[in-house]
Amino acid sequence: MTRGVLSVLLIFGSILFVFATGKPYIPKTGKRIPETLSRGWGDQLIWAQTYEEALYWSRTRNKPLMVVFHLADCPHSQAFKKIFANSYDIQKTLDEDFIVLNLMYETTDKNLSPDGQYVPRIFFVDPSMTVRADISGRYSNRLYAYEPTDEKLLRENMEKAKKLLKQEL
Amino acid sequence: MTRGVLSVLLIFGSILFVFATGKPYIPKTGKRIPETLSRGWGDQLIWAQTYEEALYWSRTRNKPLMVVFHLADCPHSQAFKKIFANSYDIQKTLDEDFIVLNLMYETTDKNLSPDGQYVPRIFFVDPSMTVRADISGRYSNRLYAYEPTDEKLLRENMEKAKKLLKQEL
Repeated sequence: MTRGVLSVLLIFGSILFVFATGKPYIPKTGKRIPETLSRGWGDQLIWAQTYEEALYWSRTRNKPLMVVFHLADCPHSQAFKKIFANSYDIQKTLDEDFIVLNLMYETTDKNLSPDGQYVPRIFFVDPSMTVRADISGRYSNRLYAYEPTDEKLLRENMEKAKKLLKQEL
Repeated sequence: MTRGVLSVLLIFGSILFVFATGKPYIPKTGKRIPETLSRGWGDQLIWAQTYEEALYWSRTRNKPLMVVFHLADCPHSQAFKKIFANSYDIQKTLDEDFIVLNLMYETTDKNLSPDGQYVPRIFFVDPSMTVRADISGRYSNRLYAYEPTDEKLLRENMEKAKKLLKQEL
């Protein structure tokens, strides 16, 4: 009997809820899983949404910024993402010492494409808002590209980026 | 007995998995829930990440763009977001006929702040990349602001934005 009363209350409550908040919108193609800002590059990191936001965070928190350009349908991006997202050391250092941003579309800042708009490519930006073009990978035709075998090199480059420019002056 | 063997296999499999993928990184402050691109403005919508991306989508798909500026710690933004995200009509129309972008940081495009950088404020951009400064709300001192009571006005403005500029020429 009590269970019956509870059920009625529950149904009544649900109807009230729908009336109060309205029918939720579900696309015809079915419910979608919301896209995250990480896009698979590290779900535990706090990703900036835009370059402007990332630069602001970098300047105000005095941390270097890492910008990763990638594409969902690029196998090189996907292969490197797997290494990147699963590297404990990369993720920990990024979380503690860096501002992070990943982008699938180019910005209007030409300093982020000095040798072209290929993917994946990674740039470091100093809190002074200087793009660290001096911190590059091992491929002379695509200076800022990284392959899955370049995890160690990326970690070394992160250490370089942590030595902020103003401390060197 | 079979259950015992299965348990051993399961443990062995888990160890193999951790060896293969490495220890996952968890922040000292505990596991985080990844931030979504919707930021609460409609989990079923496909949000662009940046203004450049949104303009590209708008141009190539010939759909008007809606840009929502908001802040997490602004009570006006929060109040309007609740109405916005729970309106079946707004969400359905946006999903079917618009490109959507929500931003917490300003862009470098001054056309998106003709009367200041207040929040919440909403702009429509035509696929021809023209900011529709003519589509505004009801407050003369903050032309592009909307209050929770302005749901109907926003829906009307969305209809205006759907009449693309090039069709009017």
